Amino acid sequence: MEFTLRQLAELLGGKVEGDENVKVNRLDKIQEGKPGGISFLANEKYETYLYQTAASAVIVSEGFKPTKSYQTNLIWVKDAYSSFTQILETYSQFTKASFQGVEEPSYMDPSSQIGDGHYRGAFSYIGKNSHIGNQVKIHPHAYIGNQVKIGDNCIIHPGAKICDGTVIGNHCEIHPGAVIGSDGFGFAPQEDGSYKAIPQIGNVILEDWVSIGANVTVDCATMGSTIIRKGAKIDNLVQIAHNVIIGDNTVIAAQAGVSGSSELGKNCVIAGKAGIVGHIKIADQTTVGANTGVIKSIRKPGQTIFGYIGMEMKQFLKSYSIFKNLEDLESRIKELEKKP
Amino acid sequence: MEFTLRQLAELLGGKVEGDENVKVNRLDKIQEGKPGGISFLANEKYETYLYQTAASAVIVSEGFKPTKSYQTNLIWVKDAYSSFTQILETYSQFTKASFQGVEEPSYMDPSSQIGDGHYRGAFSYIGKNSHIGNQVKIHPHAYIGNQVKIGDNCIIHPGAKICDGTVIGNHCEIHPGAVIGSDGFGFAPQEDGSYKAIPQIGNVILEDWVSIGANVTVDCATMGSTIIRKGAKIDNLVQIAHNVIIGDNTVIAAQAGVSGSSELGKNCVIAGKAGIVGHIKIADQTTVGANTGVIKSIRKPGQTIFGYIGMEMKQFLKSYSIFKNLEDLESRIKELEKKP
Amino acid sequence: MEFTLRQLAELLGGKVEGDENVKVNRLDKIQEGKPGGISFLANEKYETYLYQTAASAVIVSEGFKPTKSYQTNLIWVKDAYSSFTQILETYSQFTKASFQGVEEPSYMDPSSQIGDGHYRGAFSYIGKNSHIGNQVKIHPHAYIGNQVKIGDNCIIHPGAKICDGTVIGNHCEIHPGAVIGSDGFGFAPQEDGSYKAIPQIGNVILEDWVSIGANVTVDCATMGSTIIRKGAKIDNLVQIAHNVIIGDNTVIAAQAGVSGSSELGKNCVIAGKAGIVGHIKIADQTTVGANTGVIKSIRKPGQTIFGYIGMEMKQFLKSYSIFKNLEDLESRIKELEKKP
Repeated sequence: MEFTLRQLAELLGGKVEGDENVKVNRLDKIQEGKPGGISFLANEKYETYLYQTAASAVIVSEGFKPTKSYQTNLIWVKDAYSSFTQILETYSQFTKASFQGVEEPSYMDPSSQIGDGHYRGAFSYIGKNSHIGNQVKIHPHAYIGNQVKIGDNCIIHPGAKICDGTVIGNHCEIHPGAVIGSDGFGFAPQEDGSYKAIPQIGNVILEDWVSIGANVTVDCATMGSTIIRKGAKIDNLVQIAHNVIIGDNTVIAAQAGVSGSSELGKNCVIAGKAGIVGHIKIADQTTVGANTGVIKSIRKPGQTIFGYIGMEMKQFLKSYSIFKNLEDLESRIKELEKKP
Repeated sequence: MEFTLRQLAELLGGKVEGDENVKVNRLDKIQEGKPGGISFLANEKYETYLYQTAASAVIVSEGFKPTKSYQTNLIWVKDAYSSFTQILETYSQFTKASFQGVEEPSYMDPSSQIGDGHYRGAFSYIGKNSHIGNQVKIHPHAYIGNQVKIGDNCIIHPGAKICDGTVIGNHCEIHPGAVIGSDGFGFAPQEDGSYKAIPQIGNVILEDWVSIGANVTVDCATMGSTIIRKGAKIDNLVQIAHNVIIGDNTVIAAQAGVSGSSELGKNCVIAGKAGIVGHIKIADQTTVGANTGVIKSIRKPGQTIFGYIGMEMKQFLKSYSIFKNLEDLESRIKELEKKP
Repeated sequence: MEFTLRQLAELLGGKVEGDENVKVNRLDKIQEGKPGGISFLANEKYETYLYQTAASAVIVSEGFKPTKSYQTNLIWVKDAYSSFTQILETYSQFTKASFQGVEEPSYMDPSSQIGDGHYRGAFSYIGKNSHIGNQVKIHPHAYIGNQVKIGDNCIIHPGAKICDGTVIGNHCEIHPGAVIGSDGFGFAPQEDGSYKAIPQIGNVILEDWVSIGANVTVDCATMGSTIIRKGAKIDNLVQIAHNVIIGDNTVIAAQAGVSGSSELGKNCVIAGKAGIVGHIKIADQTTVGANTGVIKSIRKPGQTIFGYIGMEMKQFLKSYSIFKNLEDLESRIKELEKKP
């Protein structure tokens, strides 16, 4: 697959600076650009590579002002990052394997249904009374239990496990090894110090356009539903406990966890390894920093919370900058104590 | 399945306040109560919902004193929470699918044995010389290696992996994607800076009534056994390293980790994301707070440990409350330094 | 399998103190030593067990000086730990099951190839156009996608998932449930607040002698490759994000995470639960403490970094020791403020 810069500029609604007839057949990172490849510059950190790159062309944004000379051809576009994403998508459509049909052995209980354009990989499993829409790709070793509903255009990656009663909307993607709808962690303490499991009879609902990362765990509700709303994106190894609700377009990065019955608002960003305790609410547009522990509800939307016990980020950073030199602070107190 | 309030009160040993002949056929959370459903009130946080709920009935505890009027019927019981758990269990027994028999294709080496009342889901695998008791349910994609022993009444959920030599007691539940008995992380540093794997020839022992969460990892011992004792409950995505011992009825919440050769006592509670270093001992009834790092042995039973480097919880919270306003502390020192 | 102490001493190049003709047939931890077993003493913490042990023999290092009398036989060697590792290896070679041949049903697309001495467990899957070397053991439920390359002498454990385009060197071991090459977590924010997935067209490269723990996730690059270099060892439940590079012989302990595009040098040690933000570089021989957050590049090799926001370890510990008694510090300020 080879394109001239003119073709790409047309696709992107941009303008070529340099030789329009140069051909590219590969996408490269700008720091690794080589002849025949096209790169992009969106983050100023990488500007210096523009002046050194051997890439045949670089996509840049209209506002950008080069400060040195460069050898490469440019394609000027409104927004270099989204233009590059557009090329990635086109590239990906051409090159991505298309999965169709049924590989054997695979297993589907006769009481279940699957729509048109499906793929069922070898060793994939579909239990009883499950309803699966059109254009759903169920990869090898994927497990779909009983009474599961899955909408259209979903991808269930290898070894993902969709437990009984789960409801999944359209355009969802469940990455390898993720577990959706396993039992919530609920145990009633007994008088002898042991614990008795509390049956978890609820389910999980994933609305449209939800993405669930590799080896993520999402527990079913004790009663009712654990819900991940439209457009939420969950990264690898995240834990979502029973009865949690994740709002529209909220993004949760790797290894973060949300404890039971907590509710996250819309358009939140939860950074990696953050932990949110149970039974609290997080307002819309909240940003929670990496490794932050949130232990009480965040009522005011749009805040950035950070710290071992999360607080307003600026406050934490001020305190931490003094903490780094606490020894100095103590010395100053010692000096003061010496005064008569 | 429909019950009158009179029937439920009899089951629970409680008393109806209101119409005994009202029928319910569903369990609801109190904040989502609707006609035809029964809810419970155990946590005072939710009391306000009692006065608004449209549920047909609510289960309440003997000691509870309503402060406003309400429209719903009540069932008064000794303990609302455990009564509700009892209904959940009954409900769950009626509605839960019963798994029996063998789905094909499945794989069991002829040298292995499995007892009565078993289920072997499609694509389940049982290796050589393994002995599995009665009433064991082995779900699709579950993997059971060689020389594994499993007692009676266990559930091995979809895609759980029980590696060679593991010994599992009775009434254990291994949730989807959990890995029991993978190699411990042991490498001997070599003179050239590389590492050589140390063979891990031990195994994992799970005693009776142990529950292991989804995508948990429990490593086998270098020698001897990694042991999880009777009644311990392990939540999702927890890491248990080689040669660890977890005491009876100890509970470990999601994403916590225990490093090699550490021993946890009985009836401990380890909160989410806590980390315990290797080669230490934690006394019985210790509570370790969320995201706490425990770096030395806890000798005295019954303490609550909390903090980035764990300490007695009250002490940490006092220090942290001052940390939050460290800038203020520094200002006061500056003021003092200005004094002549 | 039974050996005399004389035989073992010859194997290890050591000397027997006591009865050379004593036979052992088992390896024990020194604190659990019993007749017929051989143990070792390498860590002075365990010295006291030497004087009590019922083991038939204990391996000790040349420099060791007993301070009490003991009943057991000794084998004196240069280094007790590496000698014991040597015995473990020999033991392991004799006892470990050897996996050969193909169990059915298994799946391999005819366009793929696998070398001599292979094992393909039941329900293992190999997609299209994949090339697998000699002596590769592919365990049950392992998934190998399309256009994957795997070298010689690799072990792909049960349920490990090797996604499309991954390249694996020789002598690599992928533990159960690990996911190699799932999509990187890349989403472009849209004007309406939703996110659009950015196609991840890169791959993962594991060089020779890499070990990947159970339920680890390693994402493919957006473009180019996520690379784990020769001899790196990754423990369970670790997250490696897209475009990360891990240097030769770097060791990463359980539940740690490395965010997108960061580069770790050679021979680093990253302790459990540590988190490394995206787009930074960590110098060779850096040690990162448990649960440490690294938020900026570490330029100087050989440092030890520790803390909630990582800093030089000694500095953090000094500050933390004062933090533990911050209340005391505040009291001293109050006292000073009382002065006229």
